Amino acid sequence: MPLDAIPVVIAPSGLRAGELSGNAPPLLREIAEMVRRLLASGETSAIDLQALPLTPADLEWLREQLGEGEIAVTLNADGESSLDETACPGVWWITHHNPMGAVVSAFIEVAFVPEVVKAHPEDVVIGLEHLELLISDLS
Amino acid sequence: MPLDAIPVVIAPSGLRAGELSGNAPPLLREIAEMVRRLLASGETSAIDLQALPLTPADLEWLREQLGEGEIAVTLNADGESSLDETACPGVWWITHHNPMGAVVSAFIEVAFVPEVVKAHPEDVVIGLEHLELLISDLS
Repeated sequence: MPLDAIPVVIAPSGLRAGELSGNAPPLLREIAEMVRRLLASGETSAIDLQALPLTPADLEWLREQLGEGEIAVTLNADGESSLDETACPGVWWITHHNPMGAVVSAFIEVAFVPEVVKAHPEDVVIGLEHLELLISDLS
Repeated sequence: MPLDAIPVVIAPSGLRAGELSGNAPPLLREIAEMVRRLLASGETSAIDLQALPLTPADLEWLREQLGEGEIAVTLNADGESSLDETACPGVWWITHHNPMGAVVSAFIEVAFVPEVVKAHPEDVVIGLEHLELLISDLS
């Protein structure tokens, strides 16, 4: 099911932060579908939580439903990002902050490991060159 | 080069914690070789730091040489583990603690991502079942 097919209801503009819009429960079904795809084909996917009409109460409900996992990743690059495994392995709650600490984006990523945690081969090559330089300085 | 081929010198028993044994620099060469293998074939490998005659000063020197990376992972399962990327991407400094907080093991792992950070498919299946139960409770 593509993301734009999620039957979300546009939150009434009068909805308060503490109120549930009714948009979060369908997301749980979408996440389950994403996990099935991950298991079936290894396909990873993500939901941009800021692109959906969710209230803070919706997000809190969703996070509580997904629970807390064993792994928490912190990425410090031009602002801090937290990538927290939920109690459903393979479902990660990701929040990116700007250098001032404000949340700039929030995602649910369904993957065996979030993409940004993996070292990229081109960066490993650069690191190896640095390491070789260190070693040549030793001798 | 297999680990037992590293030309380590057995630290004299009289060596103090703050002294360098001379065993750390050869490890840098071994790590560079491990990184080359990772890039060439995707083969991951690890060095058990407690199995080598290294003083605290050696470990400190090694950690300083490898530098600090952007990613820090915390794993909470029967004691806390920290898996910190070094400034050489693909080289991770891993410390496992027991529930009382004492260090029980320390490794350098060379991998695009440390093995324990990846969700295992069998755990993802269990998480999906939990998610499906949550969903069936909603309707």
